[in-house]
Amino acid sequence: MAKSNHSILIFALGGVGEIGKNMYVIQCDDDIVVIDAGLKFPEEEMLGIDMVIPDITYLEENREKVRGIIITHGHEDHIGGLPYVLRHVNVPIYATKLTLGLIEAKLKESGMLNETKRYLINKDSEIRLGRLKATFFRTNHSIPDSVGVCIDTPEGLIVHTGDFKFDQTPVNNQTADLAKMAEIGARGVLCLLSDSTNAERPGFTGSERAVGEAIKDVFSKATGRIVVSTFASNVHRIQQVFDAAYEHDRKVAIVGRSMVNVINISMELGYLHAPDGLLVEPDEVNKLPAEKVVILSTGSQGEPMSALTRMARSAHRKLDILPGDTVVIAATPIPGNEKYVARTIDQLYRIGAEVIYGGHGPNGTVHVSGHGSQEDLRLMLNLMKPKFFIPIHGEYRMLRMHGILAEQVGVPPENIFLLDNGDTVEISGGKARYGPKVHVGNVLIDGLGVGDVGNIVLRDRKLLSQDGILVVVVTLSKQNGTILSGPDIISRGFVYVRESEELLDEANRIVTQTLQKCVEENVNEWSSLKNNVKDALGRYLYDQTRRRPMILPIIMEV
Amino acid sequence: MAKSNHSILIFALGGVGEIGKNMYVIQCDDDIVVIDAGLKFPEEEMLGIDMVIPDITYLEENREKVRGIIITHGHEDHIGGLPYVLRHVNVPIYATKLTLGLIEAKLKESGMLNETKRYLINKDSEIRLGRLKATFFRTNHSIPDSVGVCIDTPEGLIVHTGDFKFDQTPVNNQTADLAKMAEIGARGVLCLLSDSTNAERPGFTGSERAVGEAIKDVFSKATGRIVVSTFASNVHRIQQVFDAAYEHDRKVAIVGRSMVNVINISMELGYLHAPDGLLVEPDEVNKLPAEKVVILSTGSQGEPMSALTRMARSAHRKLDILPGDTVVIAATPIPGNEKYVARTIDQLYRIGAEVIYGGHGPNGTVHVSGHGSQEDLRLMLNLMKPKFFIPIHGEYRMLRMHGILAEQVGVPPENIFLLDNGDTVEISGGKARYGPKVHVGNVLIDGLGVGDVGNIVLRDRKLLSQDGILVVVVTLSKQNGTILSGPDIISRGFVYVRESEELLDEANRIVTQTLQKCVEENVNEWSSLKNNVKDALGRYLYDQTRRRPMILPIIMEV
Repeated sequence: MAKSNHSILIFALGGVGEIGKNMYVIQCDDDIVVIDAGLKFPEEEMLGIDMVIPDITYLEENREKVRGIIITHGHEDHIGGLPYVLRHVNVPIYATKLTLGLIEAKLKESGMLNETKRYLINKDSEIRLGRLKATFFRTNHSIPDSVGVCIDTPEGLIVHTGDFKFDQTPVNNQTADLAKMAEIGARGVLCLLSDSTNAERPGFTGSERAVGEAIKDVFSKATGRIVVSTFASNVHRIQQVFDAAYEHDRKVAIVGRSMVNVINISMELGYLHAPDGLLVEPDEVNKLPAEKVVILSTGSQGEPMSALTRMARSAHRKLDILPGDTVVIAATPIPGNEKYVARTIDQLYRIGAEVIYGGHGPNGTVHVSGHGSQEDLRLMLNLMKPKFFIPIHGEYRMLRMHGILAEQVGVPPENIFLLDNGDTVEISGGKARYGPKVHVGNVLIDGLGVGDVGNIVLRDRKLLSQDGILVVVVTLSKQNGTILSGPDIISRGFVYVRESEELLDEANRIVTQTLQKCVEENVNEWSSLKNNVKDALGRYLYDQTRRRPMILPIIMEV
Repeated sequence: MAKSNHSILIFALGGVGEIGKNMYVIQCDDDIVVIDAGLKFPEEEMLGIDMVIPDITYLEENREKVRGIIITHGHEDHIGGLPYVLRHVNVPIYATKLTLGLIEAKLKESGMLNETKRYLINKDSEIRLGRLKATFFRTNHSIPDSVGVCIDTPEGLIVHTGDFKFDQTPVNNQTADLAKMAEIGARGVLCLLSDSTNAERPGFTGSERAVGEAIKDVFSKATGRIVVSTFASNVHRIQQVFDAAYEHDRKVAIVGRSMVNVINISMELGYLHAPDGLLVEPDEVNKLPAEKVVILSTGSQGEPMSALTRMARSAHRKLDILPGDTVVIAATPIPGNEKYVARTIDQLYRIGAEVIYGGHGPNGTVHVSGHGSQEDLRLMLNLMKPKFFIPIHGEYRMLRMHGILAEQVGVPPENIFLLDNGDTVEISGGKARYGPKVHVGNVLIDGLGVGDVGNIVLRDRKLLSQDGILVVVVTLSKQNGTILSGPDIISRGFVYVRESEELLDEANRIVTQTLQKCVEENVNEWSSLKNNVKDALGRYLYDQTRRRPMILPIIMEV
């Protein structure tokens, strides 16, 4: 590669060293291309938060340089942030057919469909993005129509794999574009960004078709109803359930909002095929004999409000799980959901259902990952033969392991860049190094509020969740500061009031005493009054209960 | 077995279909024997709760029949409930030496040591408990001195395995009492209660000695400091760390309160041996060369406040993790802790430490379970040859799987009893059936409060944790109900107040309006006033934010 005066900057706006919220920026001089705009679901300690999206301050500050957002596939952790991002930086988006279908549904819901420029791409598209050119290659993933992205820059090719695995026997017979990848590799890849989600798993990731075989096994053995729960977006898996149902002369009812949505979009766009009469409304299920029924449901993560969990708790409007049902949970728990999934399985067994779950059922494997394992990752590295390597999409230890894999196939260690939040890689004149830090971060969404819940609010929620709150109200006289009314103490989430009368009576006495002492000593600044009340009451309550509720003194004056 | 008029009742007071809080009751006529008295750590949704113990109402109501509590081993989920139980039902306790040592430390802490009758047993003890007799057999588990219990009743033998696995090469060379178990089996076991924790795992559970080998491997390769984190109670593993340190001429510093406690007790009682000079104070570590240091630490579950996590965050008073350290996490995450452990590992890698964790490290296995897998369980069943079988200790699906294993070795399905909360098994005249339901449940401990936090308090904490609270205070005139002061609105955990002035101003206006309307319409019952304020304000806030904070209207009158 010839020397040049161009400078390339690569970094993540979204999650680095975490799963989800994927959003990468590739900037060459004054041209910025964004790849993906995902969300992630909140960590446990983000109390009350609905979702988390990347902070896009950088894009807002460089608005005039942003040429577009390329979406690699239709999963929430790659498209979920779009409505928020586009509201602030309205640039064209580029996506394949199914991906675009899913995005459009999302934009419609947030009333942003018309104001968004959308471009349909396919694996053969070439798009101009300022002085950059993007081309694509087909990959295999747990949703159809996934692509990798190749950005042609004056410094050389930058390749972003998206999420991928190599499936040699994919359900739609469309294997990854091996020849095209090899061709890109032969042209010379300056820098590869590759999916690290499964970098800790040895071997190759299995084919989705194996899940189809396991599902068929289940269908040939089950005598009662069959319930299959999987990710709504796993269209290939849903197709395999449809096929098995058709073969075994069963009808399929679909429950769960996201499942209904994705299936509708996929059928409309031709990614999913159901013979006439296969699908029935959930209402009709109870009229059919058990051996004629398949229920396809959300809830494979044991989410408390999902269709499967509600059916298992007899809390679903239309359907219950019955003894003799066979329930297939065609998924493995996402980290953090293990307990929910376990509880759902226990509940299903209690009802008397048979449950087949995870990667090790008695009928073989009812789930395979959509992400490549170590051999897939090595294969990608060998196809692309990158000069520089940036492992992406994964927690820190996975990025690190992916770096080790890259070393093993010959990438020099000094050419491998592990990014942490705010880190950038700068490539110029054929050389790469860690570049200037950029501003990145989490934006928390709670209801309609985007970014209005920060550390202070979260800290308060945490405190409230642990020991509750005591509100102390008192009305004082403007003239002489004497107590006109109260103090009244109201508690929530602290103790069971009916069984704690003594404690609260004594608390009341302590507040009264403290206030009277303040009046006597002419302490009449409200902040001092409040602090005195807080201290005295807090000390007493901790002594008595070893709890530290939030104490909110309110002083009214008339 | 001859017909008789005796009746045996077997049930769990503690966790059935869950892990932890183990407490079993075996009652024969007027004699009750309790086996174990554990606690469990709170589920995620038990906000602010410190621990959960069994509801012992049944024992309180049958106080005069309770002959004693036998403790099978010294883990918290078997002994942790003792201080609470003994406060209400003060009966003798029976335990082996190390178990009793750990219990005594616990009782001392809660000031109950002197008032508790404690009896030391060993594997050869025979103890009389009313008309019942208890004998013991040695088992292998992840803490020394574990035993199974055999209760001789007029109806036949009831065997409770405690937690166990079969370790053919245990660290202390004390294998399980196979001959004695076979002898018990030959005498005829009426009913077996057996540990189901690993009933889903095929094969045999590995020997603890394999962990020692893996640890030795780590020691022979590491050039910097070595940090080993494991459960404090895994005395055999700690011994193996001591041995490896001694061999490699390293000193051992111990950090973490529970680690220090257990090691002190174990050394005092002769269960753990450290050559003179092996142990050093954490203060001294920084004076030693890296290659001479081992730090033995709590925190193998990634607990945010544990020594390992604090060291990794540079928040420990005395020690940090340094680049070049080798950290061995000799444990696997307990369900629910996966995310914490993953975060800790990521943080350690970020610092530049090498991390070896779980059952699949590059140096072999640095953890094996203390619970028997399917082959261990089958072996136990074949040794005991029970007539009736009750799988215990495990979530529901594990109990169910253990039932299947029992069927496979010849126990008739109708002789296998899967208990759910409150279920009992009644055995009389050689016949067993589900007996009368008993009262069981969770008692939540929060600070000093035992059982004073129930559903109402937890529901409030949940609400508060999601969207926070708004307190609305107003002072009204006693004479005519007009507003004398306020309304004031104070919010916590709802929105960031400084950026939400408009919202809160408008909220204030709505409250004022609502109150004025009430005055005009002569609504002057406080409950109606409050409800009107709640409704109007709640509606407005939901419209504006899609959040539902708790609203607490407080009306003062002067």
